[in-house]
Amino acid sequence: MNPNLQINWINSLLEFDKIPSYQSVRDAAENLSGIVVRTPLLESYALNEKLGARFFLKCETLQHTGSFKFRGAYNTISRLAEEQKASGVFAYSSGNHAQGVALSAKMLGIKATILMPEDTPSVKLDNTRGYGAKVVTYDRYHQSREDIGRKIAEENNLTLIKPYDNYFVISGQGTTGIEIAEQLKARDVHADICVCPAGGGGLIAGTSLALRDLSPDTKIYAAEPKNFDDLKRSLELGERVSNEPGHRSICDAIVTPIPGEITFGINKTTLAGGLAVSDAETRSALRAAFHYFKCVVEPGGAVAIAAVLSGKLDIKGKTVVAIASGGNVDPMLFSEILAERA
Amino acid sequence: MNPNLQINWINSLLEFDKIPSYQSVRDAAENLSGIVVRTPLLESYALNEKLGARFFLKCETLQHTGSFKFRGAYNTISRLAEEQKASGVFAYSSGNHAQGVALSAKMLGIKATILMPEDTPSVKLDNTRGYGAKVVTYDRYHQSREDIGRKIAEENNLTLIKPYDNYFVISGQGTTGIEIAEQLKARDVHADICVCPAGGGGLIAGTSLALRDLSPDTKIYAAEPKNFDDLKRSLELGERVSNEPGHRSICDAIVTPIPGEITFGINKTTLAGGLAVSDAETRSALRAAFHYFKCVVEPGGAVAIAAVLSGKLDIKGKTVVAIASGGNVDPMLFSEILAERA
Repeated sequence: MNPNLQINWINSLLEFDKIPSYQSVRDAAENLSGIVVRTPLLESYALNEKLGARFFLKCETLQHTGSFKFRGAYNTISRLAEEQKASGVFAYSSGNHAQGVALSAKMLGIKATILMPEDTPSVKLDNTRGYGAKVVTYDRYHQSREDIGRKIAEENNLTLIKPYDNYFVISGQGTTGIEIAEQLKARDVHADICVCPAGGGGLIAGTSLALRDLSPDTKIYAAEPKNFDDLKRSLELGERVSNEPGHRSICDAIVTPIPGEITFGINKTTLAGGLAVSDAETRSALRAAFHYFKCVVEPGGAVAIAAVLSGKLDIKGKTVVAIASGGNVDPMLFSEILAERA
Repeated sequence: MNPNLQINWINSLLEFDKIPSYQSVRDAAENLSGIVVRTPLLESYALNEKLGARFFLKCETLQHTGSFKFRGAYNTISRLAEEQKASGVFAYSSGNHAQGVALSAKMLGIKATILMPEDTPSVKLDNTRGYGAKVVTYDRYHQSREDIGRKIAEENNLTLIKPYDNYFVISGQGTTGIEIAEQLKARDVHADICVCPAGGGGLIAGTSLALRDLSPDTKIYAAEPKNFDDLKRSLELGERVSNEPGHRSICDAIVTPIPGEITFGINKTTLAGGLAVSDAETRSALRAAFHYFKCVVEPGGAVAIAAVLSGKLDIKGKTVVAIASGGNVDPMLFSEILAERA
């Protein structure tokens, strides 16, 4: 093991021990100030009228790279030790995390290598390369992502940027929650409910840490696709359980197998519960976001909207925030969903 | 003529005499503060890379009612005399102005009556009714909008809210320009070029008044659909000329016949010129806004993006702002455009 690699390894151990907190989210907000997009908290009078509630949409679709993932990636990469920065970073992801890591690295002048399945839609490969990352592809049916990843990272002494189970990643995502609280306060509004999409649970863990301090009465719910509601069931059981294999969902961005270890440690203390939505409810939510908010939301990013609009919670007379976590959707799929009658 | 009607008539004469200025735009910004959405000025690193320029998109698609029209409508209606407010307001429009007037009136507790063609797409009729307005329809092939309008307004003593040739309307739209200047300044950026869609010319008149004071070196261009480039040709000739009849465009929101009188009086002193774009270029711009910005833009709202992306200006190494003025597009049309190969 060369000395740099040892430093990287020690750093990653230290980091793993740290538990994100309201303070670490605050620190992230300071670190990301002027770097991330302070995404709008939108409201539609027409939709409010229809729901008999006050509904706000936090548009992380308008974040750099089209999803909240940029927040956590930048917060993490910008804090690496100089040795780590000099060697470069590494991530495996077929989607939003890849783009967040690629752009963050580019902005910081750091080399990024991303491992992606060779059958990743070309638009996502192109986007990731467009941010200057080196993309390495593998055959996901015959090769182990972890084995190839470890080999590439070790040979090139790269630092792995995990998608959610990381102190700085979770803290970075939590800046979304700080913005929500500040934006509501500026309008003199208190949120009764906040619903947030959950895959690995990084966004909702960070956001709930922020809201627990800034808006302690707000009930926070995780939204997940049906059959991928591992967080909902884990919350009910009080321990991490995984999804049954063999199911499919259009919500490709958030079909993770099991809640993260660090994220679940937070989420089990901060959340009010989970809500599972069908693909049909998600498709309908995409059309609603188009109609009422003129926003392009990807399926995985629309599950919180879907949970609210399909009536999974009693919201009459209440104030509700839903987070639209990403907008990187294939144009043909979006076109098809728009053309469906509601 | 009843006394109230006389008051309304005198008020409207007084108003017509006033010429919008930087100060009237500033006053509008104060009046609209906390009421309008401070819409984001978005940037895409991937698009910047592709263009070799710095390109900002001002997203008025995210304004209340999905277009900039809310700014001018609210600024105007909120300043009516108490007698006018008590009687109610009136507008004719098949689109964005109708929705801007309807919601502004609703927020101010004023009755609104909107005259719309009976063959208006039902989604637009529904939206306008959804904001609480009384919608009156007419047969646009056999009835005169002006005659019916005058009759309704006189019988009910309603105040007509014009779509662009009005002091407070132009001043309200200009708050878009103040926001652009402030948002650029916050990032320490200077805009070389600003391109803005033009129909009647209210948005670009107000915006150019703001930018002339706040960013005097910025060259401002009007974008229009091909064959509806009345402002471009009027600027070249130094006098108002109209479009030839018989042409069609998908940019329904901005196919006005001739530049406004007050708006052209301003635009001929503030603009650098006009740019005409084809429907194919506009369709391509809709796809670009979807891909790079996750924004839903309607055809008429996308002509400024189209003008820049189709290379009508030399932007290499420059900083360019394009305004996306509205997002109220029929989902079937949007679906069709998305599905086309670029």
